[in-house]
Amino acid sequence: MLRARRLFRALRSCSSAPCPRPRPSARLSVRDALGSLGTSGERVKVQGWIRSVRSQKEVLFLHVNDGSSLESLQVVADSSCDSRELAFGSSVEVQGQLVKSPSKRQNVELKAEEIKVIGSCDSQEFPIKYKERHPLEYLRQYPHLRCRTNILGSILRVRSEATAAIHSFFKDSGFVHIHTPIITSNDCEGAGELFQVEPSSKINLPEKNFFDVPAFLTVSGQLHLEVMSGAFTQVFTFGPTFRAENSQSRRHLAEFYMVEAEISFIESLQDLMQVMEELFKATTMMVLSNCPEDVELCHKFIAPGHKIRTYAKKQLFNVAAVDLLVPGIGELFGGSLREERHHVLEQRLARSGLTEAYQWYLDLRRFGSVPHGGFGMGFERYLQCILGIDNIKDVVPFPRFTHSCLL
Amino acid sequence: MLRARRLFRALRSCSSAPCPRPRPSARLSVRDALGSLGTSGERVKVQGWIRSVRSQKEVLFLHVNDGSSLESLQVVADSSCDSRELAFGSSVEVQGQLVKSPSKRQNVELKAEEIKVIGSCDSQEFPIKYKERHPLEYLRQYPHLRCRTNILGSILRVRSEATAAIHSFFKDSGFVHIHTPIITSNDCEGAGELFQVEPSSKINLPEKNFFDVPAFLTVSGQLHLEVMSGAFTQVFTFGPTFRAENSQSRRHLAEFYMVEAEISFIESLQDLMQVMEELFKATTMMVLSNCPEDVELCHKFIAPGHKIRTYAKKQLFNVAAVDLLVPGIGELFGGSLREERHHVLEQRLARSGLTEAYQWYLDLRRFGSVPHGGFGMGFERYLQCILGIDNIKDVVPFPRFTHSCLL
Repeated sequence: MLRARRLFRALRSCSSAPCPRPRPSARLSVRDALGSLGTSGERVKVQGWIRSVRSQKEVLFLHVNDGSSLESLQVVADSSCDSRELAFGSSVEVQGQLVKSPSKRQNVELKAEEIKVIGSCDSQEFPIKYKERHPLEYLRQYPHLRCRTNILGSILRVRSEATAAIHSFFKDSGFVHIHTPIITSNDCEGAGELFQVEPSSKINLPEKNFFDVPAFLTVSGQLHLEVMSGAFTQVFTFGPTFRAENSQSRRHLAEFYMVEAEISFIESLQDLMQVMEELFKATTMMVLSNCPEDVELCHKFIAPGHKIRTYAKKQLFNVAAVDLLVPGIGELFGGSLREERHHVLEQRLARSGLTEAYQWYLDLRRFGSVPHGGFGMGFERYLQCILGIDNIKDVVPFPRFTHSCLL
Repeated sequence: MLRARRLFRALRSCSSAPCPRPRPSARLSVRDALGSLGTSGERVKVQGWIRSVRSQKEVLFLHVNDGSSLESLQVVADSSCDSRELAFGSSVEVQGQLVKSPSKRQNVELKAEEIKVIGSCDSQEFPIKYKERHPLEYLRQYPHLRCRTNILGSILRVRSEATAAIHSFFKDSGFVHIHTPIITSNDCEGAGELFQVEPSSKINLPEKNFFDVPAFLTVSGQLHLEVMSGAFTQVFTFGPTFRAENSQSRRHLAEFYMVEAEISFIESLQDLMQVMEELFKATTMMVLSNCPEDVELCHKFIAPGHKIRTYAKKQLFNVAAVDLLVPGIGELFGGSLREERHHVLEQRLARSGLTEAYQWYLDLRRFGSVPHGGFGMGFERYLQCILGIDNIKDVVPFPRFTHSCLL
């Protein structure tokens, strides 16, 4: 197995470095080409994959997409350029003049001077068919190809945009980002089952656990953020979390992403809920402003009439906790104030025989304790919520769940 | 074990919601207080932990730090405010007037009207001692408290700043961010040993693997990025990767972070190296411009005379790959052009009996193949490189390595 992987690695390397070719015209992404005015008639080079071919008597129309936007760039060429290889899915390099389009459908188009097919695509074999709107269930069988469809392209661009927006929001709000550990000996939630981690080969450590103690994949970074909030006041993490739940439902993944924040000197749930709300608003505003077409596609094709739904708030005041539930999706946010009083926590731990194991957690309350609280947001659920996507497996690039770990 | 965790979770919840108190003055972070002019004499509230106490006959000087910056805010109070609880490590809330400081050491200081001790700190028991410069080895014993020292505070702020800068760089350069999977059945590198993943309890799935196939923690997101570069042209990931190496050296971790990028339509190593260089420059410029004091502290105290070292380039032109080595740290970048020709890859895989397992990888070359290449950057090594930190365990919040998985 290991040998095979090493071999495979060596095989994938090129056997010689290609000679760099001269570059006559500026390379433009489709997004940048579409955003230009097309009035200067500049010579450009655009590279991407063919999304449609329409051949008329004297003119050939291609739509070329490179994933930089949902929209494709219209390429207009002399019909003499046509060839069998210019087909849906093929990769091409087009050089020509960017000009104002006479059609109302687009602002600019590329008047091709040269079209080079880089890699052809056998449309008989290609599981994605021209002009067909494949159901999301069908596309899930092809995790290596489904990203080339309009709908997965849009979802994953929104996911990328939301990721950037979340980092920006916390940075602008003065939070320090913390990489909380993925492997942990010390687990917080007890919600659902855990994955255990051990080296696949025991050759080097025959007797003991690799870490000397049983180690698990994290289910939450909360305890580690509590540590860090005692130094940086406002901290957040945005990383993978895991549940070994035996579920293939449309709501569960074995590997999913959580945004978690912890704030010191916070004294009320209201303060916490304000941060949740600001996070939701700022992220959604950024997505709507930078990917309007992508969001629209999801709303139009997946959830007709979907607008961002209002959400239910459920406050359990007796435990100073708040959950935010979205109809049809489940818990989007969960937050609470933590017990910061040393003597209260100490008594409770002692009664349960946990004092020794959580001595370090008591230490946080022994040395300059502060009132603090925090929350977590399920990132996939957030995406489902704003895009109206029914199945959580469609908002993650490579879904992992019981019986399924493709690629 | 599971019961204990559930119990512990319940214990940490507050038993009642505290009443929100009235807030007479605007809350300011230490960073914002230090950045103000102090001329308007505005009333503010600052919260943080005491870093030093100096008591004179009539005046009491405190330095208060909340982790928003390396620098602390000087608080000046009447000596009648002094108490045993105002000690190193205690958490306090100070209200008063922000005024211009008569001293040249700082621009502003806080004239305290009220000092409230929120959580006291027993300096006898606190492992971090006032005015002492603890060696990094000593601090590693206290992963839950070391972040309260100047040096770890600086390192982790730089880590946070660099994280944000990396996301910004790629976003501004038109890359789509991809969450490549952590659990994978399909591993690329074969470099070092793998961690295997299984549910800790087999109750629900007694017979088989959870995923039906053996599953491992990722050692690289490269193959998954190759998939995505076939849809989005330019993609990147920034996440945890794992090696089950039996090493406690200052150079190795079992869990560490990699920045990886993959670019379609790239044809030369020079193009790839240019992106690496731009990433390094943009990230470092951002860190130097936003955290100059933090970087300076590291250079001054940890690596006297350290300036960012020039690095060696090692090009192996026969395999179209490039490695970038930093003296004393190791491989910082590794990149290569990938084999995009279907027939070449098919022959090699067939010869090695890997055709079936990597059919999906061949598919990427069957359907609109393009020349592409990519690179990875070790994030901890990057931080070591710019900060001059000798041991990789000191640039990560919670280091994991053989025999050690604290918290």
